[in-house]
Amino acid sequence: MKLASFHDGGSTRIGLVEGDEIVDLATGDDRLPSDLIPLIAAGEDGRAAISRAADRARRLPLSSVRLGPPIASPRKFLGLALNYRSHIEELRAQGVAIPEHQIWFNKQVTALNGPYEPIHLPRASSQLDYEGELAIVIGKRARHVRGREARSIIAGFMVCNDVSVRDWQRRSPTGTLGKSFDTHGPVGPWLTTIDEAPEPEGLNIKTWVDGELRQNGDTSEMTYSFEAMIEELTTVFTLEPGDILTTGTPRGVGGGFHPPRFLTVGQSVKVAIEGLGHIENTVIAEPE
Amino acid sequence: MKLASFHDGGSTRIGLVEGDEIVDLATGDDRLPSDLIPLIAAGEDGRAAISRAADRARRLPLSSVRLGPPIASPRKFLGLALNYRSHIEELRAQGVAIPEHQIWFNKQVTALNGPYEPIHLPRASSQLDYEGELAIVIGKRARHVRGREARSIIAGFMVCNDVSVRDWQRRSPTGTLGKSFDTHGPVGPWLTTIDEAPEPEGLNIKTWVDGELRQNGDTSEMTYSFEAMIEELTTVFTLEPGDILTTGTPRGVGGGFHPPRFLTVGQSVKVAIEGLGHIENTVIAEPE
Repeated sequence: MKLASFHDGGSTRIGLVEGDEIVDLATGDDRLPSDLIPLIAAGEDGRAAISRAADRARRLPLSSVRLGPPIASPRKFLGLALNYRSHIEELRAQGVAIPEHQIWFNKQVTALNGPYEPIHLPRASSQLDYEGELAIVIGKRARHVRGREARSIIAGFMVCNDVSVRDWQRRSPTGTLGKSFDTHGPVGPWLTTIDEAPEPEGLNIKTWVDGELRQNGDTSEMTYSFEAMIEELTTVFTLEPGDILTTGTPRGVGGGFHPPRFLTVGQSVKVAIEGLGHIENTVIAEPE
Repeated sequence: MKLASFHDGGSTRIGLVEGDEIVDLATGDDRLPSDLIPLIAAGEDGRAAISRAADRARRLPLSSVRLGPPIASPRKFLGLALNYRSHIEELRAQGVAIPEHQIWFNKQVTALNGPYEPIHLPRASSQLDYEGELAIVIGKRARHVRGREARSIIAGFMVCNDVSVRDWQRRSPTGTLGKSFDTHGPVGPWLTTIDEAPEPEGLNIKTWVDGELRQNGDTSEMTYSFEAMIEELTTVFTLEPGDILTTGTPRGVGGGFHPPRFLTVGQSVKVAIEGLGHIENTVIAEPE
């Protein structure tokens, strides 16, 4: 299933994307929640409830609605640094030391943004950068997950742009500030559930800025497998339905060029992952 | 007001602490939310609703209920590293470089814990440490807050133990893992609202382990004022009602001793702040 959240006529609702239509699920069953998290937490039962509602629901042209982030209020929005071999090489060339373990950081949940919404060039920086990434959405509450069991707690996958502000990443080197400016977490365009998603290893992932191809990687370049990520995180804490894990970026970020090619107002960044769709966000000056 | 959350007879409810009693607010007005965040977000109106409910509500002996974290599901739980001058000296003596800017990290919201609940010695580490801290709770949605305006977005204050796992802090140096093991964010015992709280600068803050005084500081030792913290954070992102900011610890953490004095199973850690009460948590082995 391709599960989405959309704004239409002043309300935010959940939808099922089929071809160039979106099924307005609340019109099929008004007892469904207005947020996807409880539905994905319900697993098989949630998907069955969605299917039943979809049979009776109104369909809208996908192009007539504004998509929001499929998951708008997760409890965690985590990112893995330095996971693609090509990006590691790019950073090593700049003298960045490569750590031995998984380096996770938090994007604030307030940074979440729709797949086609503007992103802000902050008043506080001109070092705005993009990172095209594959994001995992967690479907089950879990701790101490081991090995192949990891797949069973994944609800599905989304495209993410882990928008980053490089000088603020250096200023406070935890990621908590530099990765978390408002609007800097566009995700979508929908959540492709794991039962219908392509095998997540070996997917082509591309980022374009104003149509120019900047990143062209493959998810098989990842140093850490999804199993290894989930094992590491759940050694420490409980993952919960709706938690978003964005899993690193291939080479070609703006900061990797000499001189750096940071984003400027008016530029458009598109990230596409094979089988998962694309998101595209235009840079605007941070509003007053 | 001293606002609390408590477990009694199988439900979690909100309460007002007065002396050695807790006012069971839902018994005075069953339309009140079961969570403090919407009430603090309502500001003056929220406090008025609480006062009206309290006049009619049942009172229980405070000792008869189990207190939970006053704020159980914030959207952010942030910590400021290296804020007390005495702790900076302690770390500098160990060769830690002292940064020029505020270093913020995320504790995962799943780490939140009640004021008198057990904390886990993780299976994955023996380097369990304590940090007695003053925590701010945000009361208003805000961005780009400047100077004295910062006070107006603070709902109140709590005591926090920023429980830390030192080897995992080094393993992934963003704080995202080492500060976030389940149970490692005890807060409370209640939220003292800013209108009734003592001036937060110049408060004595103490931590004891098994009755031995380990930290004895003063909030006036902070390098960054509350205004400076809120200004820095809201330069980057929106703060929202319920967000928790824990503001650093004075000297005397277990890792600062030679050799280090990490916490072991059965030890009890108590943190008290003048005018805000105390929390006390016993270390247990992480359950199977």
